[in-house]
Amino acid sequence: MSIPSPIEYADASPAVRAVFDDIKATRNVPDVNNFWKYLARDPVLLKRTWESVKDVMSPGALDPLTKEMIYVAVSVTNGCNYCIASHTAGARKAGMTEAMFGELMAVVGMANETNRLANGYRVPVDAAFEP
Amino acid sequence: MSIPSPIEYADASPAVRAVFDDIKATRNVPDVNNFWKYLARDPVLLKRTWESVKDVMSPGALDPLTKEMIYVAVSVTNGCNYCIASHTAGARKAGMTEAMFGELMAVVGMANETNRLANGYRVPVDAAFEP
Amino acid sequence: MSIPSPIEYADASPAVRAVFDDIKATRNVPDVNNFWKYLARDPVLLKRTWESVKDVMSPGALDPLTKEMIYVAVSVTNGCNYCIASHTAGARKAGMTEAMFGELMAVVGMANETNRLANGYRVPVDAAFEP
Amino acid sequence: MSIPSPIEYADASPAVRAVFDDIKATRNVPDVNNFWKYLARDPVLLKRTWESVKDVMSPGALDPLTKEMIYVAVSVTNGCNYCIASHTAGARKAGMTEAMFGELMAVVGMANETNRLANGYRVPVDAAFEP
Amino acid sequence: MSIPSPIEYADASPAVRAVFDDIKATRNVPDVNNFWKYLARDPVLLKRTWESVKDVMSPGALDPLTKEMIYVAVSVTNGCNYCIASHTAGARKAGMTEAMFGELMAVVGMANETNRLANGYRVPVDAAFEP
Amino acid sequence: MSIPSPIEYADASPAVRAVFDDIKATRNVPDVNNFWKYLARDPVLLKRTWESVKDVMSPGALDPLTKEMIYVAVSVTNGCNYCIASHTAGARKAGMTEAMFGELMAVVGMANETNRLANGYRVPVDAAFEP
Repeated sequence: MSIPSPIEYADASPAVRAVFDDIKATRNVPDVNNFWKYLARDPVLLKRTWESVKDVMSPGALDPLTKEMIYVAVSVTNGCNYCIASHTAGARKAGMTEAMFGELMAVVGMANETNRLANGYRVPVDAAFEP
Repeated sequence: MSIPSPIEYADASPAVRAVFDDIKATRNVPDVNNFWKYLARDPVLLKRTWESVKDVMSPGALDPLTKEMIYVAVSVTNGCNYCIASHTAGARKAGMTEAMFGELMAVVGMANETNRLANGYRVPVDAAFEP
Repeated sequence: MSIPSPIEYADASPAVRAVFDDIKATRNVPDVNNFWKYLARDPVLLKRTWESVKDVMSPGALDPLTKEMIYVAVSVTNGCNYCIASHTAGARKAGMTEAMFGELMAVVGMANETNRLANGYRVPVDAAFEP
Repeated sequence: MSIPSPIEYADASPAVRAVFDDIKATRNVPDVNNFWKYLARDPVLLKRTWESVKDVMSPGALDPLTKEMIYVAVSVTNGCNYCIASHTAGARKAGMTEAMFGELMAVVGMANETNRLANGYRVPVDAAFEP
Repeated sequence: MSIPSPIEYADASPAVRAVFDDIKATRNVPDVNNFWKYLARDPVLLKRTWESVKDVMSPGALDPLTKEMIYVAVSVTNGCNYCIASHTAGARKAGMTEAMFGELMAVVGMANETNRLANGYRVPVDAAFEP
Repeated sequence: MSIPSPIEYADASPAVRAVFDDIKATRNVPDVNNFWKYLARDPVLLKRTWESVKDVMSPGALDPLTKEMIYVAVSVTNGCNYCIASHTAGARKAGMTEAMFGELMAVVGMANETNRLANGYRVPVDAAFEP
């Protein structure tokens, strides 16, 4: 196998093109992001991942903006550069203002801090939070 | 030093009691959670952490429920048991329904999955997401 | 294979006993911790891990207390309960006071917070810090 | 909102300048690092984060060099490139020699390894380490 | 919403029972694990997760034992207790011997150590490994 | 100390050259990777790390390809760019096909997802998996 590289629409198989077409139609964009072009090396993974993402990120009990911000919170915690960049863009497109981004970062930073304080002080779960 | 242990209100110094009182008044609860009782070993840390949490979690551009769900997303990603338990309770108190919790978990799980796919496929950031 | 279980000194092979004896002599303790009793299932791993730990944790350019506190910092960041418990005990034995523990936790918490702020704001490395 | 970008002193509001001035005076540097220039997008976060960092990193029961090395240990464990670069520089400025850096890395590496061995072997906490 | 709790077969909806039946038939087990009983709170998530897991873990270019050991490697790295326990059991069932488990742990430990050494020494990717 | 920089063979001490020679002979390569050139700043760490890696990665109950894929799984989970690049290359050299890489990524992604679902739903370990 070669070092991972993207597959452009023009070079894609019909199965990959079908997924790319659905991404473009669902998101109303002229081209898919690099993430999908790289996953296209594995058409089964591409299709399963896109269908899961489409299902999970569609509006439900939570609105799309909230879902995108939660995605950013996870990506920032994991330090995934690609995901931070793409989902911050996604959240902006869904309506995130600069003030909202600032508060999102403040909560993510604080949660990461207190997670470690709870670990280090070995705090037992309060009885009220136990099943 | 001994193994970390909690400080109850009855045994607390005036400085610690002042923080405990503010937590109880702000949250309208009869007692503070274990987290604060353990941090009370270090009154400076206790006061700074509480004031930061109070400031960060108060309503602003994001509502308290969204903030609590972001806190849960970080805690689940980090695997902090105490924080998952306490902030899931906090999110519920702020109005999270079972359907919202289900979608929150679905997004957190999906984000943790795609974070690794982006890492493993070494996907470069799209030009559109670069400064 | 069975679920991991500890090997006590009385049931240990000569190769495992030799490592256990060295741990007890080096640390001046009557018995080894659970960590070593579980690793004893794999005598090669046991021996290599102990020799590496003994080498790395011995006094050098850094004193043993500083090394134990760094160990705690990593374990708290990773959320490894066993390691937090055992290395906090190790740091105490090496002289960590309650005030030092409090400051250690404060630094670890703050570092975990600012790590995420740097991630989320996508801060580029300053030219002065680049090779 | 736009993609995160830094705010230089010349373009900063009086509130941001006040923080920048305090950073420069406290650290005796001609300019602040990128981290602060990016956080300046959110003056409240900037001020709170700087005041917490200044408080936490000042000499106390632990000296500044030890605190900087703990900061590096966390940042290396989390894989935060910016934080590794800036706090390694901070530790060097506070007196870290190449030998100290080498031992710091050795401890951080070893702790990350044994954290996983403890996880994988499912080692229970020794009774002596329990409250 | 209540604190998460499991749904037993007897209390499950037809949609949940259909997934439980498929898990039991696929794995030839009399009952499903707790993981599935908890996810049953969200039938859509349950169904999607099971179908993805079944698809991903079925034999392909990699055999089931290799896949289970990779699952353990990830779970140990993340410190997920439930996942370590259940997938170590799964790997055993697929044929993992005690010697294989020992080597798996050794590789996972070593990889976590060298990951941090690469981070801390800020090692640039060799030209040969770049696209 | 200076910013970490590599040590080339021509500039290396006899102790470092001895390790470099062993790496080149063992792996049958004309030069060592950057990782070893950076670790060479600390000859003791270099020697210990290489000997551990050589020991751990040699064929045993698990074959070299399986070990390399486990290494990749850990590195992808931790988001260590250098390690992902170098060990994906190592796995390829050991025989990993593109289809195997695709399935490896699918398992790693799925494991990272279900690790968080187990955390978030607070799933207790099944009795059958307990010691």
